[in-house]
Amino acid sequence: MLGLMMDRALSLPSILEYAAAYHPHREVVSRSVEGPIFRYTYVDALARAKQMAKALIDLGVKPGDRVATLAWSTHRHFELYYAVSGVGAVLHTINPRLHPDQIAWVANHAEDTVLFFDLTFGDLVAEIAPQMKTVKTLVSLTDREHRPAAAPAGTLVYEELIEAQTPDFVWPEVDERQASGLCYTSGTTGNPKGVLYSHRATVLHAMAMVQPDCFDLGARDAVLPCAQMYHANAWCTPYGAPMVGAKLILPGRQLDGPSICELAQAEGASFVLGVPTIWIGVLDHLDKTGGQLHVRTVAIGGSAPTASLIDRVEAQMGATVRQIWGMTETSPMGVINTPLPEHAGEDPAQSTARKMKQGRGLWGVDLRIIGEEGQRLPHDGASAGQLQVRGPWVSSAYFKNDGAAAFSDDGWFDTGDIATLDAEGYLRLTDRAKDVIKSGGEWISTLDLEDAVCSHPAVAMAAAIGVPHPKWDERPLLLVVLRPGQSAEPEVLKAHVAERVAKWWTPDEVRIVEALPIGPTGKVLKRELRDQLATQPA
Amino acid sequence: MLGLMMDRALSLPSILEYAAAYHPHREVVSRSVEGPIFRYTYVDALARAKQMAKALIDLGVKPGDRVATLAWSTHRHFELYYAVSGVGAVLHTINPRLHPDQIAWVANHAEDTVLFFDLTFGDLVAEIAPQMKTVKTLVSLTDREHRPAAAPAGTLVYEELIEAQTPDFVWPEVDERQASGLCYTSGTTGNPKGVLYSHRATVLHAMAMVQPDCFDLGARDAVLPCAQMYHANAWCTPYGAPMVGAKLILPGRQLDGPSICELAQAEGASFVLGVPTIWIGVLDHLDKTGGQLHVRTVAIGGSAPTASLIDRVEAQMGATVRQIWGMTETSPMGVINTPLPEHAGEDPAQSTARKMKQGRGLWGVDLRIIGEEGQRLPHDGASAGQLQVRGPWVSSAYFKNDGAAAFSDDGWFDTGDIATLDAEGYLRLTDRAKDVIKSGGEWISTLDLEDAVCSHPAVAMAAAIGVPHPKWDERPLLLVVLRPGQSAEPEVLKAHVAERVAKWWTPDEVRIVEALPIGPTGKVLKRELRDQLATQPA
Repeated sequence: MLGLMMDRALSLPSILEYAAAYHPHREVVSRSVEGPIFRYTYVDALARAKQMAKALIDLGVKPGDRVATLAWSTHRHFELYYAVSGVGAVLHTINPRLHPDQIAWVANHAEDTVLFFDLTFGDLVAEIAPQMKTVKTLVSLTDREHRPAAAPAGTLVYEELIEAQTPDFVWPEVDERQASGLCYTSGTTGNPKGVLYSHRATVLHAMAMVQPDCFDLGARDAVLPCAQMYHANAWCTPYGAPMVGAKLILPGRQLDGPSICELAQAEGASFVLGVPTIWIGVLDHLDKTGGQLHVRTVAIGGSAPTASLIDRVEAQMGATVRQIWGMTETSPMGVINTPLPEHAGEDPAQSTARKMKQGRGLWGVDLRIIGEEGQRLPHDGASAGQLQVRGPWVSSAYFKNDGAAAFSDDGWFDTGDIATLDAEGYLRLTDRAKDVIKSGGEWISTLDLEDAVCSHPAVAMAAAIGVPHPKWDERPLLLVVLRPGQSAEPEVLKAHVAERVAKWWTPDEVRIVEALPIGPTGKVLKRELRDQLATQPA
Repeated sequence: MLGLMMDRALSLPSILEYAAAYHPHREVVSRSVEGPIFRYTYVDALARAKQMAKALIDLGVKPGDRVATLAWSTHRHFELYYAVSGVGAVLHTINPRLHPDQIAWVANHAEDTVLFFDLTFGDLVAEIAPQMKTVKTLVSLTDREHRPAAAPAGTLVYEELIEAQTPDFVWPEVDERQASGLCYTSGTTGNPKGVLYSHRATVLHAMAMVQPDCFDLGARDAVLPCAQMYHANAWCTPYGAPMVGAKLILPGRQLDGPSICELAQAEGASFVLGVPTIWIGVLDHLDKTGGQLHVRTVAIGGSAPTASLIDRVEAQMGATVRQIWGMTETSPMGVINTPLPEHAGEDPAQSTARKMKQGRGLWGVDLRIIGEEGQRLPHDGASAGQLQVRGPWVSSAYFKNDGAAAFSDDGWFDTGDIATLDAEGYLRLTDRAKDVIKSGGEWISTLDLEDAVCSHPAVAMAAAIGVPHPKWDERPLLLVVLRPGQSAEPEVLKAHVAERVAKWWTPDEVRIVEALPIGPTGKVLKRELRDQLATQPA
């Protein structure tokens, strides 16, 4: 027997419609690529999204078509989030940090028909246009005045498309399971794989995200995502903020410390998010200028923050840090480190140990860890295994069924992470499966080694990798980049690590290097390090 | 093109599974009908819900069957919420305040097969058992020792059913649109009508309810619903609290001021909810005893609180009041009065005026007001019309298609309320459609008249009704009950009202009465008043 409740689809346009109807004066503020700060309301944004929806239909975009962007976090990108999904098409947010060949590859793989690109990418688009087999229409995300000279002939101008339309548009009804977005994971091995979001998954994710124990967002907030809108939809804040009538602050292309500090202060940001390097940049800027920035919450994810970064953010920004773990495949919210009431009395050491964990599950995301024989491991905080997840905002497959091995027969997604879960439900990553060091038949956590050395004040960043060893199969090598102006002897750092990890985990060598290779999502490319070392004598 | 995200059903058992896995130590505390306080964890509750699920299957309960309760807010009722819906059956929570004939009528209309009842209702069940045509199994919600003598022969004992089972049970997969609960609205006209909830609607409602601008619930909270579990599922808190790992405090049958104060204090309640009369009882108790009770938030709904009640709650309980409006048909969340950041600077008079509004819409619930010619009225705070709502947790029809006139052809539910909406999205009820006073072709708001007279310190409660008038069709009559020990002349009260409403709204007569007739959900039965007055000379 079915219930008798309205069968209303969970659709993305309903979010912007809500914000315009119930929070008509709330602003969306965007640092434009042209330069100035742009500012309007959700009412204006909805009107322009509807104008763009009509323009897309006039351009021949059909339901299911993929429409690509090469774009920073701006109000125009925000409009496309709703306009493209709203007409039943699929917004493919391409990461412009990919190699040009890879950009063309993903555009071809996705069979994109239209490409919207920011001013910054005029040259890039001119270079790769011949390689893109399916893109029929290019649109420059600017006005006539700023149209980039480098763009290929026939490139349309976004503001002209908008101006040609009136905002009298009614969103078509969608099946909530319809695809709404496409985002490729820039895997460090193999070709990128496409995550195909649905309206339903994204709405449910936004609903879960705003709850008090997750991002804790309401109409009182001003949300500044310092993750680009091509990174897992800026962690879905362009959906979560309007859903609750929060102000949305889009930082354009500038994620450097000075730009973020200026924008956050000027616009009264209460909630900010981003990868650890963003906050290092912000804190270094504050140190240098003696400036101050206060926000309520700093969400940190993408890679694990060090204890010293968490401490600095909390001390210097008067903020609470909420570490999150997630992936493009989890929309991205997997777990979040929000304290429980039980933690009110924890001492500083306990507090630091807890904050270093990635977080706890929210309703909706199930987690399990699987041992080497495929058995389910206990949630004892010690047993490390492959982390698998499932839930209504987790991928069930990659686009065109690539990488099918990541999806188990019984309905779980294998994250490629090695992790522990403890009795309180806290997830702690110990490694990426492909980066794990296996020494004497046991795993050594590269993340623990990196955390240990990063707690030394002279260390800026570190990467532990396994190097072949005749007796133990592999032994850890720890590569360290020092902070500017700091010095430390490798043996001192080794001793520092030895005090903090199991004896047999202590790396055989700590090596100080100038820099580490960083990939397009800001993570250290360990495979590249291993390849380099394999061809160089130690 | 469909998205590639996991097709996980939004199911009610997943909520309790989550709470047990991620908040294993969090408590459910219940004032038992036998007397003592009962206390256990979500882990225990899940185990017992699974035992009860197996017992239901052994009793022959099949998916789609209706299983009824005549029960207060206790841990056993909580277990049935999950056990019954979890096996695919439908939990029919009967309001025991209905007349016995009506209880038998709804049990027959629902075709209930099993009836679980609290100790309190042994005599009642014995009386109506012969009238209930479909109920095959009676279960007393207690243990062997407390089994009520009055219960019919063959009545089973809840704790014996639990003890006979082990908790090794896996919830069957459900279609999320499957019916999960049935709750009859005790309309003041005609037979009660059944609202048939689904897993999906209830999960979505719980997700919306916990957000910061609604009930603002997280693991830090202790939630005490002072609405019975047969009233729109205690406003869905038995789902919302475990979804976020909040402590749940169930008050049993005792909703009097002393009992609530004692329980809330002893268990550290942070969030409480209930109809206005509950808080009058609590405040009167605090006045009498000089006691103190502090909670973070008091949600008030069911009927509109007076300004003086809101002020008293905020002053004496150190709490923020969040007025809500909703109905059984809206699960029940329709709107909630959470301040916007714009309200930070409002003066006391503005603050009171805002707080007297029912609230603003959250994402998910669409609202519109319809004029007498079926036209959509502007959201100007002045135009009053029929309030219609739609959303994924709003009824699409009543059980067995009763009362079909309330559902519009274009997919909206007509609430039967007359209301205004303002430009900020605030809903303000002016009347129930059936209680409206039409005088000289214009509507007079009975709620406004009642609010006006209730702002006089001597007044406890009031009801405005229309009485026939030869020239104006109807004129308002205001019936007033004074507070114990207070006195006030009718003409003084009339003058008090006249200062606060439009001149032509001022009632022709204010009449002081001993009491007003109250229905099973705590609302004044105005139809009964009109009938009484029609047969009595003024």
